[in-house]
Amino acid sequence: MATMQKVFAAYQSRLSTLQSTYPSNRYAAGIACIDNTLVPLADARIPITDQGFLKSDLTYDVPAIWDGRFFRLDDHLDRFERSCSKMRYKSPLSREELKAKLIEMAALSGMRDVYVHIIVTRGMLPAMLVSEAEQVNNLYIIMKPYYWVMAPEMQIAGTGAAVITKTVSRTPEHSVDPTVKNHQWGDFTRGVLEARDRGAKYPFLTDGQGALTEGPGYNIVLVNRGVLYTPASGVLEGVTRLSVMDVAREKGVEARVERVPVKMAYSAEEIFMCTTAGGIMPITELDGKPVGDGLIGPVTKTIWDAYWEMHYNPNYSFEISYEFSK
Amino acid sequence: MATMQKVFAAYQSRLSTLQSTYPSNRYAAGIACIDNTLVPLADARIPITDQGFLKSDLTYDVPAIWDGRFFRLDDHLDRFERSCSKMRYKSPLSREELKAKLIEMAALSGMRDVYVHIIVTRGMLPAMLVSEAEQVNNLYIIMKPYYWVMAPEMQIAGTGAAVITKTVSRTPEHSVDPTVKNHQWGDFTRGVLEARDRGAKYPFLTDGQGALTEGPGYNIVLVNRGVLYTPASGVLEGVTRLSVMDVAREKGVEARVERVPVKMAYSAEEIFMCTTAGGIMPITELDGKPVGDGLIGPVTKTIWDAYWEMHYNPNYSFEISYEFSK
Repeated sequence: MATMQKVFAAYQSRLSTLQSTYPSNRYAAGIACIDNTLVPLADARIPITDQGFLKSDLTYDVPAIWDGRFFRLDDHLDRFERSCSKMRYKSPLSREELKAKLIEMAALSGMRDVYVHIIVTRGMLPAMLVSEAEQVNNLYIIMKPYYWVMAPEMQIAGTGAAVITKTVSRTPEHSVDPTVKNHQWGDFTRGVLEARDRGAKYPFLTDGQGALTEGPGYNIVLVNRGVLYTPASGVLEGVTRLSVMDVAREKGVEARVERVPVKMAYSAEEIFMCTTAGGIMPITELDGKPVGDGLIGPVTKTIWDAYWEMHYNPNYSFEISYEFSK
Repeated sequence: MATMQKVFAAYQSRLSTLQSTYPSNRYAAGIACIDNTLVPLADARIPITDQGFLKSDLTYDVPAIWDGRFFRLDDHLDRFERSCSKMRYKSPLSREELKAKLIEMAALSGMRDVYVHIIVTRGMLPAMLVSEAEQVNNLYIIMKPYYWVMAPEMQIAGTGAAVITKTVSRTPEHSVDPTVKNHQWGDFTRGVLEARDRGAKYPFLTDGQGALTEGPGYNIVLVNRGVLYTPASGVLEGVTRLSVMDVAREKGVEARVERVPVKMAYSAEEIFMCTTAGGIMPITELDGKPVGDGLIGPVTKTIWDAYWEMHYNPNYSFEISYEFSK
């Protein structure tokens, strides 16, 4: 895994540089935008009466900055706008204003590998009380040093262990639309508790009807006879999932988005999870048994390498100017 | 509706007295407890990184104070403790400490009719990162003047209109447990939007399989051939629902908690909703057609009167001492 170690070594070096600016740069450990005002993340607070808290009435998106480059920002903002439209929110900032704010925040913080969390909430009044026209929606932005759903050490060691949950299944789309990214993680949280009880870290939720869906914050990809399979419905349409399909096409690996029966997971040669906060995350153990030969497989490695390389492709990313803030 | 008008008139008079203390008493329009510190509700803020916001990883309960008396507080706290236990939270305050805090807050504010919202969140770190033993859960308390899911004027006029939703059904218990009171209102919010689109205010959600469940914050009760019916599953085990059953027993009205087919709603003689934030709320129109004769029915009136009378019964409520705060 030469590429993996190279990518992580460069990242660790950038992280050390960033950490050397603590605490003189008060934004370097995290920055937030609340009511259009920038504050250190540790001091960022929201009104307790915001309906985004009291009714989880919000949508959000998570783009990332990698090595000083915003990755697939427009794909994230496209999805974010679709989510706002489905839930009838209006972002207080236009797309161009939002982009400018994100770049300003990154530059001020000096963070070059960044987890970005953009939230629009219903605002201070319940949907029941105000029409769409009267709503004043709130926008919050969090930026913090890149967050790993699976830590680099675990990715290198190849010790990612998952379970298929039995005590909980994914909230169906006829109740909460999973394509509208949301904080309603009750089913995921139950999954995390079950996984921990069963000696694993990562829950895979089913639809309760024999098909795989997704886990807390990640899509699931199986490799079966050399072909990638990822569930078509009951899931977030992940931007990292999209990248996986893009690099698979480029590498000549077939990828199918369709119903994925649970039983296919038990005969998969390789399994990985994918998310903006962690990339391509190999799962080598499922329900206590090795996946394939229990090592990170060749298809996963191919996708992993190509995915991180893609971050430097100007078709998918652009460089942030950190200069103006100095 | 002599009783209804008497109850509301007395309430309005108390509310006017309270409002006369604005703004000299800075807690009279609402008070919150954050990090064990009391603040005016309008100033109350929580850390944006609280997992209760970022993952809706929390439970809550809503008891009420009516005419200076805490109503069924122990029933609410029993349920709250069951919810905490199911989700593996530990309230930072013991039950006795919590009760003392609630009484202190009510007394300081001078509010005599109070909506009380008690929240325990996972805390600052995701469940995925910390074991139960390491968690530091957060407690937040909101108290504000009594909130009406159905305003007194609408209750008096008997103009409550509901729809049975078609675009969304209630999140099933195998995904999110509805007996653990939660802020994950995505399905309810969709229901509110559908109801508004169809010219009504109150959505009734089904289980997607032909049975009624509940609406945003309220249980549903049908009157069919003089018998009360309320859904047994897929719903919060409401304390007001419990009071309805208690007063029904006292008044010799039979009450059944069982699967309630959607079609029963269309032939019901009377329908009402019930919740701590509004009490017994008559629904006289369903899907654009009158329920029964379109007026508030006799069973609803009987339950309504007995429910509000119950608030003065020392078996169910206790008087708060407002004196010590002066």
